[in-house]
Amino acid sequence: MRRCDELGRVSEEEGRLTRTFASPAMRGANALVGSWMRQAGLTVREDAAFNLIGRLPSAERGAKSVIIGSHLDTVRDAGKYDGPLGVLIGVAVAEKMRGQNLPFHLEVVGFSDEEGVKYQTTYLGSRAMCGLLAAKDLGRIREKGIARAKRAKREFLAYLEAHIEQGPVLEHVRAPVGVVSDIAGQTRIRAAFIGRAAHAGTTPMNLRRDALCGVAEVVLAAEKAGVIATVGQCAVEGGASNVIPGRATFTLDVRDVKDAKRRAACGKLRKIAAAVARRRGLALEWEIVQETPTAPMDAGLTSVLRRAVGSRVRTMASGAGHDAAVMSKVCPAAMLFVRCKGGVSHHPDESVKESDVAVALDVLARAVLELAKRHG
Amino acid sequence: MRRCDELGRVSEEEGRLTRTFASPAMRGANALVGSWMRQAGLTVREDAAFNLIGRLPSAERGAKSVIIGSHLDTVRDAGKYDGPLGVLIGVAVAEKMRGQNLPFHLEVVGFSDEEGVKYQTTYLGSRAMCGLLAAKDLGRIREKGIARAKRAKREFLAYLEAHIEQGPVLEHVRAPVGVVSDIAGQTRIRAAFIGRAAHAGTTPMNLRRDALCGVAEVVLAAEKAGVIATVGQCAVEGGASNVIPGRATFTLDVRDVKDAKRRAACGKLRKIAAAVARRRGLALEWEIVQETPTAPMDAGLTSVLRRAVGSRVRTMASGAGHDAAVMSKVCPAAMLFVRCKGGVSHHPDESVKESDVAVALDVLARAVLELAKRHG
Repeated sequence: MRRCDELGRVSEEEGRLTRTFASPAMRGANALVGSWMRQAGLTVREDAAFNLIGRLPSAERGAKSVIIGSHLDTVRDAGKYDGPLGVLIGVAVAEKMRGQNLPFHLEVVGFSDEEGVKYQTTYLGSRAMCGLLAAKDLGRIREKGIARAKRAKREFLAYLEAHIEQGPVLEHVRAPVGVVSDIAGQTRIRAAFIGRAAHAGTTPMNLRRDALCGVAEVVLAAEKAGVIATVGQCAVEGGASNVIPGRATFTLDVRDVKDAKRRAACGKLRKIAAAVARRRGLALEWEIVQETPTAPMDAGLTSVLRRAVGSRVRTMASGAGHDAAVMSKVCPAAMLFVRCKGGVSHHPDESVKESDVAVALDVLARAVLELAKRHG
Repeated sequence: MRRCDELGRVSEEEGRLTRTFASPAMRGANALVGSWMRQAGLTVREDAAFNLIGRLPSAERGAKSVIIGSHLDTVRDAGKYDGPLGVLIGVAVAEKMRGQNLPFHLEVVGFSDEEGVKYQTTYLGSRAMCGLLAAKDLGRIREKGIARAKRAKREFLAYLEAHIEQGPVLEHVRAPVGVVSDIAGQTRIRAAFIGRAAHAGTTPMNLRRDALCGVAEVVLAAEKAGVIATVGQCAVEGGASNVIPGRATFTLDVRDVKDAKRRAACGKLRKIAAAVARRRGLALEWEIVQETPTAPMDAGLTSVLRRAVGSRVRTMASGAGHDAAVMSKVCPAAMLFVRCKGGVSHHPDESVKESDVAVALDVLARAVLELAKRHG
């Protein structure tokens, strides 16, 4: 917790926490966390993608790596825990494992880019390490060398990640931690209704083509779509209080653990929007700008985590994306959520309880020892 | 029509028509229209409020004035007809009346500020002439001298105004002109819902306090409120596509000819908004920023206009404000609407038919002759 505070002061902006990919602040965070890793007895390096890697080497020949990771970059005006908490829990777990003579290398990884603030392309750090960067990502970024961070799939035995929940569920059910079943798929849509701007005083209600009324219907339909659906942005273009909205834009974010259900909900909402447009004499623009399938966590590794938690385990899907979604493509991955205050995240008010962090640390340490038993 | 074109080129902005109160462009418009007034045989002056006044004097002792007026200022990026058309129809009517020896002075007035673009305070020109400027208006403007434009109420016999409809009704019913019964009262409201911004992926639907969902309900309720009601602006403050709206602001413009009905509708919408807020766990901000009562046109003068139109007269309320609303406070006032294309106004595409303008000119001329008969 003290380290989260200290790390939270390493920022590229005065007075608030912002640490983007490959920035001096991120390099400073790597230096600071690297020093803590060394204190914990790890050998430390930074890979070509600016990922910070601390390793407690195994004496066994041909040992693979169990990685405890999360990210050290942040959004703008961030809280102190989203990302760093998982890395620092990893450092503390590794410190506990010193002298345990594990049958695998225990690595703690601080990924360099999960939030994607700098290039609007998420997971640069973990995807570089897994060799999963797309050509269009490399085209978009200046640091072309990050592709050299790629490691062979066979090096990875398992990936564990602790992360604040960023939601209110654990607080609601009064559980300090929860185990993640899946990282939910997501569809992001950019849409607009186009009607006819006209004088708000002189145009009778029945002769209107009001674009905002169309958006209002979709906002309320999204709420009832049976999935996690959010209209986060809405704007009347060129609007004025005495002008009927001629063009209104909005975004739609749809998530569900079941890809088919998410796709069906998106299809249904598009149909509803099209019907609204027809009925109201509006034109509709509807563009899917991002579509990410659900990343299921590994069942075996997740049950190791569940047993480490003990009785009354809360299992839940993650509505937010995490590095574990990328890592799950190359090895078994599992995630532990830590309760956070009010579900607040991406905000300086982000807050966790010290006792909850202690629980998470204990769970991960027990999971590592269980893995050591299995692979010993 | 040719004069409307020529006048439409007198602008303070390159490439588009903008003519605000007391600007060089407005003074230029006064000079140009003044020259046309002189050609029509009027004596021309500009009063202390920059109103352009052309007069065809009566030979009778103690004659009062019948005024045909409208405004010469415009909104930004305006059309050519909103305002100027009524002034130029007035000039043409006065030209026809030359040598008629009317029992009243016939004045054509081009008011200097109806739109209120410069100071966000409408009707500066007509209110100055009628002595209806409020202290807070004078406090807001640099041209304090305009109060000197005040004329005695007893000078005014009647006020007539021709204006484009700025709405689609006359086009819809295929009538070249319409007679205005009232200038509808208006309430302008600025409102906001405040909920809780949270992560769009991790916050279950039942634990949300989404401010935009609140706005959506009010937008649809306003549409069904039984009055002319418009949510013209709507914005999610600090929004992002993956964040649940924490604060959403909107405007509400409510108009009706019946003041009691308008007030009741505003009260009902406020109650609906408050109920929405309660149900959704939101806070509600609701501020009435402007309230203007309905200005009825004079029944006698309006029936003169109706008879001048002839059979099948379309009588309608004006949803937009006009100088006639101010003039109705000091003398009988009546208004004639001229059909405009698609109801488009406050836009360079504003368009009227030459044949409709001819009808309006003829109607006003006949109304003036009818008044001459009555007051002769």
